[in-house]
Amino acid sequence: MRVVSLMRLGDQEQRLQETFPNVDFEFYKHPSYLPESSLKEMDILMTYHKEVDASFIDKAKNLKWLMWFATGVNTLPFDALRKRNIQVTNAKGVHAQQLTEFLFAYILDDYKEMKETYEEQLSKIYNHKRTTASIAGETILFLGTGVIPKRAAQIAQVFGMKTLGLNTNGHAVEGFDETYPLSERTGIYAKANIVVNVLPETEETTFLLQKSDFDKMNTRTLFINIGRGTVVKENVLVQALKEKNIRKAYLDVYENEPLTDESGLYELDNVVMTSHITGNAQYNKTKATDIFINNLQSVLNNEGLIENVVDLNKGY
Amino acid sequence: MRVVSLMRLGDQEQRLQETFPNVDFEFYKHPSYLPESSLKEMDILMTYHKEVDASFIDKAKNLKWLMWFATGVNTLPFDALRKRNIQVTNAKGVHAQQLTEFLFAYILDDYKEMKETYEEQLSKIYNHKRTTASIAGETILFLGTGVIPKRAAQIAQVFGMKTLGLNTNGHAVEGFDETYPLSERTGIYAKANIVVNVLPETEETTFLLQKSDFDKMNTRTLFINIGRGTVVKENVLVQALKEKNIRKAYLDVYENEPLTDESGLYELDNVVMTSHITGNAQYNKTKATDIFINNLQSVLNNEGLIENVVDLNKGY
Repeated sequence: MRVVSLMRLGDQEQRLQETFPNVDFEFYKHPSYLPESSLKEMDILMTYHKEVDASFIDKAKNLKWLMWFATGVNTLPFDALRKRNIQVTNAKGVHAQQLTEFLFAYILDDYKEMKETYEEQLSKIYNHKRTTASIAGETILFLGTGVIPKRAAQIAQVFGMKTLGLNTNGHAVEGFDETYPLSERTGIYAKANIVVNVLPETEETTFLLQKSDFDKMNTRTLFINIGRGTVVKENVLVQALKEKNIRKAYLDVYENEPLTDESGLYELDNVVMTSHITGNAQYNKTKATDIFINNLQSVLNNEGLIENVVDLNKGY
Repeated sequence: MRVVSLMRLGDQEQRLQETFPNVDFEFYKHPSYLPESSLKEMDILMTYHKEVDASFIDKAKNLKWLMWFATGVNTLPFDALRKRNIQVTNAKGVHAQQLTEFLFAYILDDYKEMKETYEEQLSKIYNHKRTTASIAGETILFLGTGVIPKRAAQIAQVFGMKTLGLNTNGHAVEGFDETYPLSERTGIYAKANIVVNVLPETEETTFLLQKSDFDKMNTRTLFINIGRGTVVKENVLVQALKEKNIRKAYLDVYENEPLTDESGLYELDNVVMTSHITGNAQYNKTKATDIFINNLQSVLNNEGLIENVVDLNKGY
């Protein structure tokens, strides 16, 4: 059995070799280093590179399983994978902790007025009268109720927040006080002061949020996007922020990435931006390797993939 | 029975009158508005003003109970109160939620590099490579294990942190994985990457932290003070930060308040400062009034004070 990784995995490489002494592992720094012979003969592929497109899959004649070392699989050539019945697993869950930490960094940065107090510090102003809003009792609405929003909702509840979640059919999910179908979202927005997008990118979620969505949010709304930037067109979001349909936004993802310095978002005074970094963590490779090892052990026992199998019809 | 408040309480005034129709309430905007007659005749005092000193207490011949509308009672004239057996209650617990929110605002501001990413935003730099540290698995050490650190420790544990607490004799407290006596603190510091002071100001805690304390902390330490500024002399703290005995500090309280623009803290690049605002909340008066009402009902039933009674010998 031949396993090819299109990235170097540091000390995880030795761990894999030692865990599976009868499996051949090859690690390449980048897809461009991959020899044609390996491409043709590999059984299993570990990667997170956009170079893995339909023509790449066509050439990988023996490929049976693709382990995607990230969560969002939206760049993968679904048709080519489906046609060959190539199974896909991802690193879903690995990023839940980091994304949750960023989500609360954003919320508390806003509610505790950290930028305003830092301005005071830089101006050597001691303003003892500042009274900040509490997040206790606030209602937070998550678009999505998967692994990441579940972890975030758990923390939100301990902070004393009310948690609402939107998913395909409104099914109940642990950690959410109330859940509703995504299709009913415009009737739900007004209940929340914080709206968080954590949806994966699929055909259904691309440009899901329209001007009419932001019109229905209450004007105090803090909008946070740590899911995928394509959930809303940049110009729709810029307009909603410019016209104060919502109070403020914290964004980590964008319709067009990498964001260029010409983005209209940079001109707004009610947006805080990070550079698609909320999933970055030192431990990601280790945790994703945990998932891979768990699956490979099961495959070698002829029990098939057991963890984080992606449904290629749903796209997540 | 005559109750005097040295502050206006908004809609809580009507609430008090309606809850206790047989009690006379007087509300003054500031101690300077208080008539001599009321000072002499009041049975119960509600205040948080420093004007309540020994001579004030001497003139309040009928005073039996002082409800302090804040938590830290360190400015009160303890000897004068003890001599007359005047009981003191405070608003302890009211501020636990706000202080906890600020504590995590500080921690996440640091760990998620919010100031650095904001600089990038202002410079229109898209830096997708930034990888931030996670708070999961980090050890946080609290000086103090009272209501506020208990609430904070509860959140810390849900975030996946290990919680250590220091108190007088090291007794176990819910929410803390380990507790130790304050006297053994220099042997404990190195276990933690985050050290948080939440101690009240007493004779024992005034200038408790010396240079030797900071010397024993590990150099990655994030030091946070949301307790009282007098736990450490400003020059000791400035030196520890300047010499990088610790990595960084987030401070809300100071040896000398209000802080002047001449403080050496303003010259450091590894300190983030707020202006003793972590306890400020819109709901404080309501919550403190809850405590007062609870106690007054008990007093009128001849059952004495039942909540938040301050031990004038301990000073908290």
